[in-house]
Amino acid sequence: MELPLANGIVTLLTDFGLDDPYVGIVKGMILRAHKNASIVDLGHGVPAQAVQVGAFFLAAALDRFPVGTVHLAVVDPGVGTARRVLAAAAGRCYWIGPDNGILSSVLDRDADGEVRAVDLGRVGLEPGSATFHGRDVFAPLAGRLSSGKYGYRALGPRIDDPVRLPALTEGGPRVIHVDRFGNLITNLRAAGAEVVKIAGQRIPVRSHYAEVADGELIAVVNSYDLLEISARNASAAAALGVGSGVPVEAGGA
Amino acid sequence: MELPLANGIVTLLTDFGLDDPYVGIVKGMILRAHKNASIVDLGHGVPAQAVQVGAFFLAAALDRFPVGTVHLAVVDPGVGTARRVLAAAAGRCYWIGPDNGILSSVLDRDADGEVRAVDLGRVGLEPGSATFHGRDVFAPLAGRLSSGKYGYRALGPRIDDPVRLPALTEGGPRVIHVDRFGNLITNLRAAGAEVVKIAGQRIPVRSHYAEVADGELIAVVNSYDLLEISARNASAAAALGVGSGVPVEAGGA
Amino acid sequence: MELPLANGIVTLLTDFGLDDPYVGIVKGMILRAHKNASIVDLGHGVPAQAVQVGAFFLAAALDRFPVGTVHLAVVDPGVGTARRVLAAAAGRCYWIGPDNGILSSVLDRDADGEVRAVDLGRVGLEPGSATFHGRDVFAPLAGRLSSGKYGYRALGPRIDDPVRLPALTEGGPRVIHVDRFGNLITNLRAAGAEVVKIAGQRIPVRSHYAEVADGELIAVVNSYDLLEISARNASAAAALGVGSGVPVEAGGA
Repeated sequence: MELPLANGIVTLLTDFGLDDPYVGIVKGMILRAHKNASIVDLGHGVPAQAVQVGAFFLAAALDRFPVGTVHLAVVDPGVGTARRVLAAAAGRCYWIGPDNGILSSVLDRDADGEVRAVDLGRVGLEPGSATFHGRDVFAPLAGRLSSGKYGYRALGPRIDDPVRLPALTEGGPRVIHVDRFGNLITNLRAAGAEVVKIAGQRIPVRSHYAEVADGELIAVVNSYDLLEISARNASAAAALGVGSGVPVEAGGA
Repeated sequence: MELPLANGIVTLLTDFGLDDPYVGIVKGMILRAHKNASIVDLGHGVPAQAVQVGAFFLAAALDRFPVGTVHLAVVDPGVGTARRVLAAAAGRCYWIGPDNGILSSVLDRDADGEVRAVDLGRVGLEPGSATFHGRDVFAPLAGRLSSGKYGYRALGPRIDDPVRLPALTEGGPRVIHVDRFGNLITNLRAAGAEVVKIAGQRIPVRSHYAEVADGELIAVVNSYDLLEISARNASAAAALGVGSGVPVEAGGA
Repeated sequence: MELPLANGIVTLLTDFGLDDPYVGIVKGMILRAHKNASIVDLGHGVPAQAVQVGAFFLAAALDRFPVGTVHLAVVDPGVGTARRVLAAAAGRCYWIGPDNGILSSVLDRDADGEVRAVDLGRVGLEPGSATFHGRDVFAPLAGRLSSGKYGYRALGPRIDDPVRLPALTEGGPRVIHVDRFGNLITNLRAAGAEVVKIAGQRIPVRSHYAEVADGELIAVVNSYDLLEISARNASAAAALGVGSGVPVEAGGA
């Protein structure tokens, strides 16, 4: 695999929220490692410890950032344990996170991707706390990788057993996320579907939100390339009274 | 009109919220178009589909950023329809958004401003999705304009019929926004007023928040140059039990 | 004291929240003063007017950013009054804020730190509004200091009477903050403690979150070097039904 040249951009995905100074401190530590890093928030609203949601959000960054971007994902319920720290090269970018499955969906989508277990001793990183490796380990690692100070291959040995989560499509067709607008995002890629069934209702598939009247329910293929149930200028989640996990079914008219 | 030189700064105003990765992905797409863009959040808390609030927030950026900044505003209930994509030059900056009135308040405030309908084919932009033109169209457009790769005049023909919203002052004096502190922001510019009437109360106009005791209500001319009703170190909205849309009246003592 | 060279980075801590355009406008004004400033959010979720929480968050930035960073903190209930504007050099960085104690915790931690009262006339800054000095005064000041356009010593006379808040440890051992995860952060530095008592319960001190079963309560020394009460993959605040201000006690087993 030909490795991309680090481009100085670091993205950050966490479950830290924005009310505490945690995210800002991670950014400070990235800048201490690479003063000219350009840091972009991929988001900090992953529900606390929700690795699966983090993995879903992280994969949305594939092909949406310049080649050579370093994507750092810290949703880390095992912080302080011996869980490994991973670095991956996939989709012409780099990906760093704890070994808990958060890199799964990215690795699922690039068959040529490879993963390494970071040898913290070799790269000179020791956790200063038992609770905040985002600050002590992940930020310096991402900063240095983004700067070219570390070569990716020197981070540690290649591994073939990273923790993997079940693929999005396993577990049956269902709502996997409710977004800010109340759109119900499903795990269905059924591009040819004409109708989606949910909560006893049959909802027609249309090409865009504005094809129906205000408040009316439709399904569209959304920007994740997944079927999504929406209500025009309203919340489908509120209209249907459903949320994540609810089963759906796609079918013909 | 003499056009400003793009300075590499792009601001971003949306109704996407910060819990989903939408904002991060838009930033990635801006960076793909212009790797050295400096991206600043103007805010992502515009209520879903609230074009009028978006227009009000956007105008607050006038004269507050360096000359040549590109301001991108994506509050876009018509995404996926044939609504036009606009680019404007006003207030010595550039402004990009859907043709739904979101640029209204900026255009209201610069009589020399001009607007163009972006010719997507000519600039080589095709929406990849029917639901996320922020990612597919607006971000690359803003990125390229900020880089100087596109000249503003080459984006498309000048138009004189952009969608305009009613001016802020139309529809009678009222509360138009409640901010984070519970301050009631009105559409009154009544600089000489001595008292503001709201919800049956007469509230004195003072020069700054700290002129009264904790919890006491006052009105001040705020940073938008509008009359605002505040409670010192407390929420005027909670104290009065009122919100957006409530009528107000300015008067002498 | 040898002064650090400004490095172009400006951090921003406020109680503005992210729903209004206030933070974006402050950033625009920083960029107008220093076009190449690199701006990092330390956070905007300080509760409205909560100077003490702001001081606690601000000190978390000590030693976490590159030498020469300018840290701007705007939690400013006295905006519009004659309260002084302060600039400090401490911990090899610069710190700017209103004279209300927000710089206290930083000054508490660097005995060699020094403080100046900014002479606004001398540096050519006049507030344009009575309600938003973050925009009118603090942002240009931070921008110029970060650019090297202003020397720190030229900002105004050195003072020895900045407003100081009580030290974190005063007022008895207690919960001082509940973070996003529901962790109860105390003001106890009791590194040798084996148990923490709160709300009638005895909670064992462990080295990291994952040493107990899901939902179980433990105490750890957290990333602030303070004792913190947590529930594994759950909210200790919810489990115990307590919040900020609740007394705690550390002891042996």
